[in-house]
Amino acid sequence: MRIALDAMGGDHAPEEIVKGAIEAASEMDINILLVGRPEAIEPLLQQAPATVRKRIEIVAASEVIAMDESPATALRKKKDASIVVATRLVKEGKAEALVSAGSTGAQMAASLLGLGRISGIDRPAIATILPTLEGGKLLLDVGANAEAKPKNLLQFAMMGSVYAEKVMGISNPRVALLNIGEEETKGNELVLSTYGMLKEAPLRFIGNVEGRDLFFGRADVIVCDGFVGNVVLKFGEGMIGALTKMIKDELKNSRLAQLGALLATPALREMGKRLDYAEYGGAPLLGVNGVSIICHGSSKAKAIKNALRVAQQGVEERFIQAIKDHIPGKGDPV
Amino acid sequence: MRIALDAMGGDHAPEEIVKGAIEAASEMDINILLVGRPEAIEPLLQQAPATVRKRIEIVAASEVIAMDESPATALRKKKDASIVVATRLVKEGKAEALVSAGSTGAQMAASLLGLGRISGIDRPAIATILPTLEGGKLLLDVGANAEAKPKNLLQFAMMGSVYAEKVMGISNPRVALLNIGEEETKGNELVLSTYGMLKEAPLRFIGNVEGRDLFFGRADVIVCDGFVGNVVLKFGEGMIGALTKMIKDELKNSRLAQLGALLATPALREMGKRLDYAEYGGAPLLGVNGVSIICHGSSKAKAIKNALRVAQQGVEERFIQAIKDHIPGKGDPV
Repeated sequence: MRIALDAMGGDHAPEEIVKGAIEAASEMDINILLVGRPEAIEPLLQQAPATVRKRIEIVAASEVIAMDESPATALRKKKDASIVVATRLVKEGKAEALVSAGSTGAQMAASLLGLGRISGIDRPAIATILPTLEGGKLLLDVGANAEAKPKNLLQFAMMGSVYAEKVMGISNPRVALLNIGEEETKGNELVLSTYGMLKEAPLRFIGNVEGRDLFFGRADVIVCDGFVGNVVLKFGEGMIGALTKMIKDELKNSRLAQLGALLATPALREMGKRLDYAEYGGAPLLGVNGVSIICHGSSKAKAIKNALRVAQQGVEERFIQAIKDHIPGKGDPV
Repeated sequence: MRIALDAMGGDHAPEEIVKGAIEAASEMDINILLVGRPEAIEPLLQQAPATVRKRIEIVAASEVIAMDESPATALRKKKDASIVVATRLVKEGKAEALVSAGSTGAQMAASLLGLGRISGIDRPAIATILPTLEGGKLLLDVGANAEAKPKNLLQFAMMGSVYAEKVMGISNPRVALLNIGEEETKGNELVLSTYGMLKEAPLRFIGNVEGRDLFFGRADVIVCDGFVGNVVLKFGEGMIGALTKMIKDELKNSRLAQLGALLATPALREMGKRLDYAEYGGAPLLGVNGVSIICHGSSKAKAIKNALRVAQQGVEERFIQAIKDHIPGKGDPV
């Protein structure tokens, strides 16, 4: 299996990206196409053992799209950007999946343009794994769209259910709608309309869940619009950061507190890592016609390696085909 | 100062409500009107010292609105409900503020009906104190409205700014919009339209903040619609609950971990308490023409006492008048 990896995307590119590729190629049965400037990538590959090195190939791309560039403009102007070339490799069948820690907007636009949407899907969604007391659950959309219609949320639910079953191994996953109350009559217009559609859909829809339910694993797939999902995800990140800082501050107070802080750190760090979707291995962009894994901009080698693993699983479990099988096509009645 | 307290509202009513009233009357310079069934309240007041007892008066109300009743129907049917009678006391000038841990919907409806809105305010907002590394900040709306328009968010910002200045003592508070990116061009239609209005408003508007910024105190007043605010607030509650459970589970593993968990508990508990707006003392319902403090349904004596303190401060600082002074009235141009 070949996976295209954008060597130039992210805060720590290309060093940490290449390092992650080397680690992944050592541990996993994959070939990696590192896309970017050969002169930047080649020297970093020196550290790889020969057996690993031969499983990594460099594919030249002369340009890079910066985090703060407008995705639409950048894609128009930079035909030879690493994310564009990496996407093209998937489109042309030279790679089976794509991983990038570069601009999320650019990756979304390149994936939509280069790979196209799955028939019957109007908009893609970014799905992230949320850690809960009952294991990892899927939350989507966490930011592909700032605005959503009921039919979008329905499609997110369908795709999420397929992904949870195929890739996460949760059989007959419970799908829920993120809302401000459990009752069917609660919520804004968007969720009220969506509720009725989810009830009728071929899903195991269990109704509404509230924010406080998320960590207790009451649902396997939680659907919300990308605005709410993004705010909530970042709120969680910030909260873990603040708690960690509060506990570190305790270090200054006493030896006893110091010990406590040290001992409690693993649980916090574990939860913090999982909330950071990069650390968890990248978030699949569901709805495009190909495996496209989005990494956090701050990804380091470990996150990249984990994202490559998510890409590998996605290809192996053929979730794109599974989504196609479950989503009524454009001509079909919804 | 007299404060009307709904003795019958909440999961632990009337026992914990009366207990909270006794504690508040012991510590603070207020008189409390306990509203509810005298036969249920009277025996609980036996425990109060005579000096405290004489500062607590029982006002009879024969009915109670349950948590799961439809607020509109309940208010129509139960004319002698404790929340209705308590609100009437404020309306008639027999009390200066109202506190309840009963149904939030019923309290909102009773406050709107009984006290009316402040002129120029289309919808009220529930404002809660969010703990941050830089002290308590104000987040609103956390659930008064599932849906909001830009002009509502503008009004929330104006009211929140006044409340932060008058009651929380933050001079010239920084107001921000909760969004999925910092740039002015980010977000859904609601926040994009609101951004422009906030820029023009007589506020210290500092732009957008993301979910992860909330705990680092970058803004003093954070504005969002009630759907987003409610989901985020409950997400925080759930996360604290899950973390606490994770740390408790560590207790089973080893003596060392046990010690760490014990030592780290205070920081978590502190943050958990603050996130629970009941524990923080209740959340003001901003926009109605009177001081109406909403407590969490699970409030115990301490939360009730703190809510009475919030009510007392609200009356003392005359924030209702301050909001009126700052909000253009109905006839005025906005």
